[in-house]
Amino acid sequence: MKSALEKAEILVEALPYIKQFSGKRVVIKYGGAAMTDECLKQKVMQDIVLMKYVGMHPIVVHGGGPEINAMLKRLDIESHFVNGLRVTDADTMEVVEMVLGGKVNKAIVSGLNASGGKALGMSGKDGGLIEADFADTSGAMGFVGEVKNINPQILETVIENGYIPVIAPIGVDSQQQSYNINADLVAAAIAVAMKADKLVLLTDVPGLLMDATDTDSLISVLKVGEVQSYVQQGVIAGGMLPKVQCCVEAVQGGVGRTHIIDGRVPHAILLEIFTKEGVGTMVTW
Amino acid sequence: MKSALEKAEILVEALPYIKQFSGKRVVIKYGGAAMTDECLKQKVMQDIVLMKYVGMHPIVVHGGGPEINAMLKRLDIESHFVNGLRVTDADTMEVVEMVLGGKVNKAIVSGLNASGGKALGMSGKDGGLIEADFADTSGAMGFVGEVKNINPQILETVIENGYIPVIAPIGVDSQQQSYNINADLVAAAIAVAMKADKLVLLTDVPGLLMDATDTDSLISVLKVGEVQSYVQQGVIAGGMLPKVQCCVEAVQGGVGRTHIIDGRVPHAILLEIFTKEGVGTMVTW
Amino acid sequence: MKSALEKAEILVEALPYIKQFSGKRVVIKYGGAAMTDECLKQKVMQDIVLMKYVGMHPIVVHGGGPEINAMLKRLDIESHFVNGLRVTDADTMEVVEMVLGGKVNKAIVSGLNASGGKALGMSGKDGGLIEADFADTSGAMGFVGEVKNINPQILETVIENGYIPVIAPIGVDSQQQSYNINADLVAAAIAVAMKADKLVLLTDVPGLLMDATDTDSLISVLKVGEVQSYVQQGVIAGGMLPKVQCCVEAVQGGVGRTHIIDGRVPHAILLEIFTKEGVGTMVTW
Amino acid sequence: MKSALEKAEILVEALPYIKQFSGKRVVIKYGGAAMTDECLKQKVMQDIVLMKYVGMHPIVVHGGGPEINAMLKRLDIESHFVNGLRVTDADTMEVVEMVLGGKVNKAIVSGLNASGGKALGMSGKDGGLIEADFADTSGAMGFVGEVKNINPQILETVIENGYIPVIAPIGVDSQQQSYNINADLVAAAIAVAMKADKLVLLTDVPGLLMDATDTDSLISVLKVGEVQSYVQQGVIAGGMLPKVQCCVEAVQGGVGRTHIIDGRVPHAILLEIFTKEGVGTMVTW
Amino acid sequence: MKSALEKAEILVEALPYIKQFSGKRVVIKYGGAAMTDECLKQKVMQDIVLMKYVGMHPIVVHGGGPEINAMLKRLDIESHFVNGLRVTDADTMEVVEMVLGGKVNKAIVSGLNASGGKALGMSGKDGGLIEADFADTSGAMGFVGEVKNINPQILETVIENGYIPVIAPIGVDSQQQSYNINADLVAAAIAVAMKADKLVLLTDVPGLLMDATDTDSLISVLKVGEVQSYVQQGVIAGGMLPKVQCCVEAVQGGVGRTHIIDGRVPHAILLEIFTKEGVGTMVTW
Amino acid sequence: MKSALEKAEILVEALPYIKQFSGKRVVIKYGGAAMTDECLKQKVMQDIVLMKYVGMHPIVVHGGGPEINAMLKRLDIESHFVNGLRVTDADTMEVVEMVLGGKVNKAIVSGLNASGGKALGMSGKDGGLIEADFADTSGAMGFVGEVKNINPQILETVIENGYIPVIAPIGVDSQQQSYNINADLVAAAIAVAMKADKLVLLTDVPGLLMDATDTDSLISVLKVGEVQSYVQQGVIAGGMLPKVQCCVEAVQGGVGRTHIIDGRVPHAILLEIFTKEGVGTMVTW
Repeated sequence: MKSALEKAEILVEALPYIKQFSGKRVVIKYGGAAMTDECLKQKVMQDIVLMKYVGMHPIVVHGGGPEINAMLKRLDIESHFVNGLRVTDADTMEVVEMVLGGKVNKAIVSGLNASGGKALGMSGKDGGLIEADFADTSGAMGFVGEVKNINPQILETVIENGYIPVIAPIGVDSQQQSYNINADLVAAAIAVAMKADKLVLLTDVPGLLMDATDTDSLISVLKVGEVQSYVQQGVIAGGMLPKVQCCVEAVQGGVGRTHIIDGRVPHAILLEIFTKEGVGTMVTW
Repeated sequence: MKSALEKAEILVEALPYIKQFSGKRVVIKYGGAAMTDECLKQKVMQDIVLMKYVGMHPIVVHGGGPEINAMLKRLDIESHFVNGLRVTDADTMEVVEMVLGGKVNKAIVSGLNASGGKALGMSGKDGGLIEADFADTSGAMGFVGEVKNINPQILETVIENGYIPVIAPIGVDSQQQSYNINADLVAAAIAVAMKADKLVLLTDVPGLLMDATDTDSLISVLKVGEVQSYVQQGVIAGGMLPKVQCCVEAVQGGVGRTHIIDGRVPHAILLEIFTKEGVGTMVTW
Repeated sequence: MKSALEKAEILVEALPYIKQFSGKRVVIKYGGAAMTDECLKQKVMQDIVLMKYVGMHPIVVHGGGPEINAMLKRLDIESHFVNGLRVTDADTMEVVEMVLGGKVNKAIVSGLNASGGKALGMSGKDGGLIEADFADTSGAMGFVGEVKNINPQILETVIENGYIPVIAPIGVDSQQQSYNINADLVAAAIAVAMKADKLVLLTDVPGLLMDATDTDSLISVLKVGEVQSYVQQGVIAGGMLPKVQCCVEAVQGGVGRTHIIDGRVPHAILLEIFTKEGVGTMVTW
Repeated sequence: MKSALEKAEILVEALPYIKQFSGKRVVIKYGGAAMTDECLKQKVMQDIVLMKYVGMHPIVVHGGGPEINAMLKRLDIESHFVNGLRVTDADTMEVVEMVLGGKVNKAIVSGLNASGGKALGMSGKDGGLIEADFADTSGAMGFVGEVKNINPQILETVIENGYIPVIAPIGVDSQQQSYNINADLVAAAIAVAMKADKLVLLTDVPGLLMDATDTDSLISVLKVGEVQSYVQQGVIAGGMLPKVQCCVEAVQGGVGRTHIIDGRVPHAILLEIFTKEGVGTMVTW
Repeated sequence: MKSALEKAEILVEALPYIKQFSGKRVVIKYGGAAMTDECLKQKVMQDIVLMKYVGMHPIVVHGGGPEINAMLKRLDIESHFVNGLRVTDADTMEVVEMVLGGKVNKAIVSGLNASGGKALGMSGKDGGLIEADFADTSGAMGFVGEVKNINPQILETVIENGYIPVIAPIGVDSQQQSYNINADLVAAAIAVAMKADKLVLLTDVPGLLMDATDTDSLISVLKVGEVQSYVQQGVIAGGMLPKVQCCVEAVQGGVGRTHIIDGRVPHAILLEIFTKEGVGTMVTW
Repeated sequence: MKSALEKAEILVEALPYIKQFSGKRVVIKYGGAAMTDECLKQKVMQDIVLMKYVGMHPIVVHGGGPEINAMLKRLDIESHFVNGLRVTDADTMEVVEMVLGGKVNKAIVSGLNASGGKALGMSGKDGGLIEADFADTSGAMGFVGEVKNINPQILETVIENGYIPVIAPIGVDSQQQSYNINADLVAAAIAVAMKADKLVLLTDVPGLLMDATDTDSLISVLKVGEVQSYVQQGVIAGGMLPKVQCCVEAVQGGVGRTHIIDGRVPHAILLEIFTKEGVGTMVTW
């Protein structure tokens, strides 16, 4: 009985956070270890479904690099990377779209449904959600795209009717050409278009570290105004640079709080939202 | 962090119960120690507000015997009891109504609001909620009433608009005469009228015991069909008899599950709803 | 038949006023003789219910001084008054709240229901309606409160669903402390918060008199701009001063017309609204 | 002031009737002296607008015999009558439709608007309201029609949006042929189709008289079961026969109460609805 | 089959126009040959019903000169014209109202219903739609009116409920006096009040011609800024002058595009809306 | 202009069909040549978008055999067929799901959007749309599934909000296992669950032929009661057998009319719906 009481008290401890986020929209970029580790994955599914049941509106944007790589390899299509971005020729684009929209997206939908939610998968083509264009007009990157416009009506419709949207980061132009867009960028653009209160980027690092070799040097709160200086100091560098930039753009677009958190920690999303301390690095004004 | 993880897991553990009870109506008879002990009281408030935030519709019916006794004593009004029911003359009725409707009811409302809810107090006069008549037509019991009819429209309006109704068990007849009605009876009648899924009676006992002197002899599940036999055996007796009868009437009126639980256990309501084992005695078909 | 015809013509005479006030909100401060005289009381109930049926939204705020005094006396609690306001210690506050919320409020609710309305009683605690604080920070007045904020959502919900709200002027602060607030002040604050078209204060005087000893010297219309001068001349003095100030505040807060009328006149409210001449003193821009 | 009080009391006297008829539908056949006498006409307009404002849904069906006769005369078109029904050839039909739909109907609409209502005129062609066919298949009566079907959707739309429908009794068949239908019959059919609570036929007689020469012999209540016997006795005869038959059909079609009242009495409709005694003859089960 | 295919392709060709006008409001002034030629008339009915079914909101305003003339002649009432406007004395006004509201209006309603629509006829009196006053204050023109105000609520109600409003251009003042108003002016005023996207005036000319004797000299697009110059050149003259002025007023009032088209061309409305070229003269910014 | 007139008349000719199908639901199984021929494909897109704009609710279910075959070949996965059904092992299932859900589905969505519609792609996993189980419990067929249950809520939500759902025939069981289901079967099951008025199966044959070698021997209407006899005669055989069975099941499930039509005919869907003759074979009661 004592243990049951502790459980009850923990539930009650969550009440202020539930109250605070009731009716709020939270965009979650889902990727990395939290997507490949079956055990972590199941916990993310539970976290997101719980969010919906306690009154929040989670919106999931996912990546899928490892699955894409595996399929490209099976098809003997070689990948070239420039500045960490995959050069996406027509053959690669076809595979990216199939793997993201047909396999990864549906697996997440299925997982959320199995955890008790009602999920609805879509790519940027559905409902004309993501209008895109070439990210690199030189053509050197192929069909790597950037977001030109988000049409959020379809998302409004589905979240108000109780569904959790799960979005593959594929954009489309007026010629029906598909584009492969970085999932962090899509998540940030959707957070802005949906007037989200929170953007959460799941990563495989503990957050922004002052000293990349020392996990105790976590920067818990990063102000937008401090970013430039940290970049110059080399604190924000490598893979963290585009992630922080995504957060900055979202904050500037009106998203209240953005978070870079460690998806390797079980229930990282829940911890961020329902506990006082939060986890990882928060980027805000 | 480890402790935070445990917290997250407990939250997730509650998910199936949250899902199961989403949109369901739960009538709670609030009284006894859970109302007089300040610490227990606060936990009840939290439990009820949490229920509302995770999508349930709690409806609270309260008693207030000790407060009434204290005020009657201060006013030098003597109380007589017959079969555990207070003989309610006009003077007593006035005090009962003032104390229940003006003091106890508003203190509960205030407590729920302070815990983050939106509560709305009412007596059976408000919106014509409880139509009553003499429980004892001989007149020997005075204005002790029984429920003639429940008009649930006002409850429908307030629960659909996000409020937690808190009800003082005062009935009224067509002559505007007030009646003092047992709170358990009112809770059962409202549970039936509101097509509630659950009726929870908070008491100061662990539930129905096979052997009243042995708390290990708890009867966890009591079928309606077993009641008569247990009454004849003397297992259901004393104060438990009317409580079990309330539950039976509610079950016969269409309420899915009814519970007699120990209000002295902190978070007893939450434990009943959100844990597998439940607590106290469940009366059902 | 001739008499029936006259009746029909009177009904038709009311048509322009019914049309004019259709859908409008009218806050009525109910107190004085209209509350203690059983015959007057019944007429007020009828007037208010009629208003609701012909399409207006009446909102009732009531006092209850005589009832409070009687109960304090029965409990041997002495009352001290400063500037006409009752010094309200903790014991007095408890009685005020019980009498207003548990007895007077419910009697009005019951009376409106008996006249064919659907009334819903509440105190300032219900739905967090009235946030209050000490009116006198010196503490000399005890728990005499002033309105800090009105949360009108609960009123919107109930009036749109066909109910007549009846409000006991009890406020509450964030510590759940109750405050005793002057009913005129509460009525004015609620009229402003609800964007009422009319505020009606029932009093035991014919209105504002130029010469307090001559009821023929009634000032029918008082412009807000004239108030200061009348105060200086001593025309607005004594108990009329706070009432006029309430009206001025309401007018400044956007309430179209405010009225100080004589509750001793049967159907005074109806006469004010449905006849050309009006009754008492109207305070307006 | 005394007179004002009497007025207030008369308003309050109407309250139970207002309450009783709130939301109810009342079909009024408007014709006879109440339509030709300018003074009576204005009173009918006021009565109907008042009904709308106090929450009823009046629906007006009108005749227009005298206006039709006048126009036919101006156009040198002779009228023949068989059993009190006008033989309606094509030329006559054109005039009937113009006069009823273009002149009489719009004059009533205009009068209701001037009295503060929002009226909407229509004929049976509008919204396909009245499907008709030859009343007399021999062709001897010309385009005298009978109601084949009522399509009440347009009426539902306009009454729920606050309008008073005013209906000219012109029917139409699938070939777009217009028919001249008796207004009493149309009123009865619409009362049935709209599930009206009341059908009121304005006539130029005091109601059904036991002795046609003695206005004191009024039959206040006529049961449907008594009709046949009264017809055989000759009590129901002449112009009263079709009117009583209309009422009987309406009652049999589910209309609660039907009334044949004297339109020459000022405010006859109001008196019928808002006074205890009623006026004229009520036909009911 | 080949012919069927062509049909399908024509349907598909209409798709961009259907899409473009979906939910848009189009006011059509219906008159001239399109109203007197039975064959043209039926095509107009079909065009308008089709517009409604494919998602537009057509609103019809009609004239009726020839029918009025015929009836005036039958009644031996002489007509005088000043500047092309009929001097409208009381007798004439009565006939105008009867013919327009009772005959022409209902014939159009009936025709639209027979073509599968749900039409609802009204004059400017219904719902208080058209408030009017003397167009000529000298009184020389009699009851020729001008639009003072449009109350579009009734139109909003009926178009949102699936009806096609058909409006006779009769206005009314606060004294219930009827006025005869030019239908083009009424159409323009309603287009402005309803925030229509298109105003279409059906005429018996091909549009505005540079050279009135040469139908090949059609001016397809007329900018508002060019009007004055064309008037001075005499290009816009005679009956075209008031029509162009109507269009200019509508454009200045916010109507996107206005069209003067040749009602003698079968399906002229449909051609204007559903084909690339349009027909007649478009007046726009 | 003459040609334009013909166009207008064809549009008008479609009016009765538009009226008849307004608000109706039509499930279209899209596959075969209409999906592989770029020109036919574009016409199907236009047809479906047009249906939505004129008030119908088209729902698309698609196959994708050729695309699946191509990808299986590229991945060196061999396909085995039993009775025309692909034995679907785990590797094949993965490819089926990727190709159908990620490529074919999104290409159709994109095509409908480019034609002016708002399409939303989904598989049977989205919103838990298609619950499936092994079609062949022996396991010989692998993950070939049959429909156990359709959860149509997600479809209701999206069609009422203006979207065209496009469904890949992938089912899922409670263990998150994917199943490959025949698209005709899915279309029939969805037509039943959505209470569709019409089910249209696009094929590469002209319909059911009496003599398979003679396209003039088309059976235009096939009654459900005639099916057995035709099967015995061998008229319904081969690939037509399961298609006819789908239609029969749909008809028995309450779908009004079902059609097997020739997708190789341009605009076949439009012709079926908007022309009198229809095309292909209709299966009905």
